[in-house]
Amino acid sequence: VARRPRLVTLSTDMGPVYSAQIKGVLHRLLPDGMVVELTHELPRHQVTEGAFLVRQMARQFPPGSVHLAVVDPGVGGRRAPIAVRCKDESCLVGPDNGILYPLAELLGIVRTVRLDQQRLIGKRSISATFAGRDLFAPAAARLALGALVEDLGDPRTLSPLRIPEPQRRSQGVDGMVLHVDHFGNLISNIPAEWLPRDAPALSLSVGSRRPVPLSRARMYEQLPRGDLGLLTSSFELVEIALREDSAAKRLGVGVGEALKLRWRTRVKSTPAR
Amino acid sequence: VARRPRLVTLSTDMGPVYSAQIKGVLHRLLPDGMVVELTHELPRHQVTEGAFLVRQMARQFPPGSVHLAVVDPGVGGRRAPIAVRCKDESCLVGPDNGILYPLAELLGIVRTVRLDQQRLIGKRSISATFAGRDLFAPAAARLALGALVEDLGDPRTLSPLRIPEPQRRSQGVDGMVLHVDHFGNLISNIPAEWLPRDAPALSLSVGSRRPVPLSRARMYEQLPRGDLGLLTSSFELVEIALREDSAAKRLGVGVGEALKLRWRTRVKSTPAR
Amino acid sequence: VARRPRLVTLSTDMGPVYSAQIKGVLHRLLPDGMVVELTHELPRHQVTEGAFLVRQMARQFPPGSVHLAVVDPGVGGRRAPIAVRCKDESCLVGPDNGILYPLAELLGIVRTVRLDQQRLIGKRSISATFAGRDLFAPAAARLALGALVEDLGDPRTLSPLRIPEPQRRSQGVDGMVLHVDHFGNLISNIPAEWLPRDAPALSLSVGSRRPVPLSRARMYEQLPRGDLGLLTSSFELVEIALREDSAAKRLGVGVGEALKLRWRTRVKSTPAR
Repeated sequence: VARRPRLVTLSTDMGPVYSAQIKGVLHRLLPDGMVVELTHELPRHQVTEGAFLVRQMARQFPPGSVHLAVVDPGVGGRRAPIAVRCKDESCLVGPDNGILYPLAELLGIVRTVRLDQQRLIGKRSISATFAGRDLFAPAAARLALGALVEDLGDPRTLSPLRIPEPQRRSQGVDGMVLHVDHFGNLISNIPAEWLPRDAPALSLSVGSRRPVPLSRARMYEQLPRGDLGLLTSSFELVEIALREDSAAKRLGVGVGEALKLRWRTRVKSTPAR
Repeated sequence: VARRPRLVTLSTDMGPVYSAQIKGVLHRLLPDGMVVELTHELPRHQVTEGAFLVRQMARQFPPGSVHLAVVDPGVGGRRAPIAVRCKDESCLVGPDNGILYPLAELLGIVRTVRLDQQRLIGKRSISATFAGRDLFAPAAARLALGALVEDLGDPRTLSPLRIPEPQRRSQGVDGMVLHVDHFGNLISNIPAEWLPRDAPALSLSVGSRRPVPLSRARMYEQLPRGDLGLLTSSFELVEIALREDSAAKRLGVGVGEALKLRWRTRVKSTPAR
Repeated sequence: VARRPRLVTLSTDMGPVYSAQIKGVLHRLLPDGMVVELTHELPRHQVTEGAFLVRQMARQFPPGSVHLAVVDPGVGGRRAPIAVRCKDESCLVGPDNGILYPLAELLGIVRTVRLDQQRLIGKRSISATFAGRDLFAPAAARLALGALVEDLGDPRTLSPLRIPEPQRRSQGVDGMVLHVDHFGNLISNIPAEWLPRDAPALSLSVGSRRPVPLSRARMYEQLPRGDLGLLTSSFELVEIALREDSAAKRLGVGVGEALKLRWRTRVKSTPAR
């Protein structure tokens, strides 16, 4: 009895029209397959932010899934088309420009190959501007049907992506904005656990601007309306939020901007909230 | 033989990235399940408009479906996480802030419970800012697999949502804008059947502005280009439209704005259109 | 043994809320069906651009699929509701305003019928503003379950859609912008194969503006940053692009704008790139 193909997820920055073409190829090659579009709205051409988001979305899916992710400003050029097998039997497909790296690292890299166009689709010609449809989708479909990544190309080393690391400072930490979420909350690269447990007086400087005070809260509802606050985001990173409003707009801040967080620790007299 | 899980729908205001994480959890817990994202673009934090839209979308789905809906500005706070069983065996999951109320009322409320985190996911910790992923998705999956809402928590009364009611006036009706649709049409809270069958001279005042005349039509094509018109929306409510253009932009109007509709009835000499 | 229903695709210009209602009807009528939303973001009311996009998306799907496409400014009016059977056994459903024509022509028209409301849904009344939900979805579901288009109405001829044709000029071609893609690239109606193989000096005039020089490239990565370039789009049409930026914004150009492309051919001494 034929097993059902593995679930395939799709994450792109290319909007609905190009993404729908990829879905078409996947459904054509996987008549009984399950294809789940995670998003076609990754920030255009932004590999680092996209890579962070792909990891956060895809990690929720079942082990053994096939994850196709395409943010690919260098499409058709020098970056290699690749597939990665991970420890949980998940397979990743996309360009070797870093978009897959954080997810691969999280799931555990077992083997990486450079996709061999000839083996995948024979002598058919492909668009130099749409590898997602013409190369990555056929590769993902083959993996969903049970092919091994080794069947699709020759071994290669996955190129790393350097996500900026936060820096610990005396009474503080320097980081940056990794992502602005759908509500305008700033998701930083600072692990929430780096914060002291009791930090009554927090302040934030954005770029070279003057520090502003920050409330600290466990949930949005605790933030005084109109005040900037700091929470632990669901990504377990420091998040800067404005209750039912956009912190990004209020601060005029986008992805990549430097954040300096400072605190004054009290003598430990009250328990942490 | 295991039955296929019930279909699960998902409606949120949280954009693709957070919604995709919920889809991941659902697919992980429901390997053969059908998960249909209705939208991740409900208006941010707008419970009343969202509740109206959730009812309109979800009511089209088969009886017995599981509907997960999250517009949840108070996430992690005082509002209870709940599940509702309805007369048609549909189950609803989300926060008890009104987002589920109109749909529950339409389908017929049989039982409401407060979700018990311990029973659902044991001692695992959850994010204080993302109940959709960490609590509601596991609850929806359990219901899709056949659990009863009674298995997920203790009984509770569903909190009502007060959607503003229109008021009949002499030769008219006062209402408000419940929703601005994708085309910029204004969907009011006024039942279309409240209009007189023949009403040749209609006028509309928005907020405190001067009345403007309205054409009346059965379909957009009948509206003179550039004139505001009144139709029966597919929600069976009064709709204000501008042919192939945005009435909301023309009038500078958004959700919540007051609408005063007035008419002069003629002596009944012509049949209704 | 019951066969699984055919896959149904859905393409609309109506945003998520109306599209979700169509999905609900489809899932209600096709409990085991596969419904794939290609997009709910076709440009509002733009039949020509929508028809081009529907063809490009739907053509990737398996033969025998049912394609439901709705861009329907004349909903409820004189345009007929139709279904088309194609040579590859695909079926198309939507309004007879041209939205289905390019796809039907590509797949090969076998038979067209005018949908008969009575035969489809009996005496139930339908919304005059939402045929997608009340008429087209039930028709698509019937076809997915194996009905013949002939079962759904009486024969009719499909109305053609005239997509503007490009014109060959001495040392050039005149065309127009058919679509602005998600990245701001201009997709023209000019077949890429109309270009000379070696054309070192290309220029482009938009509307009545002065010509600007164009680089030519096979992939985006080859374009000098900040310079407009010409590529072969994945639609196999001439595409005007700005590397990791929006050509549409740079040129202030939208769909329908006239494009004049000119070249000076060199003596053939270098091979085409």
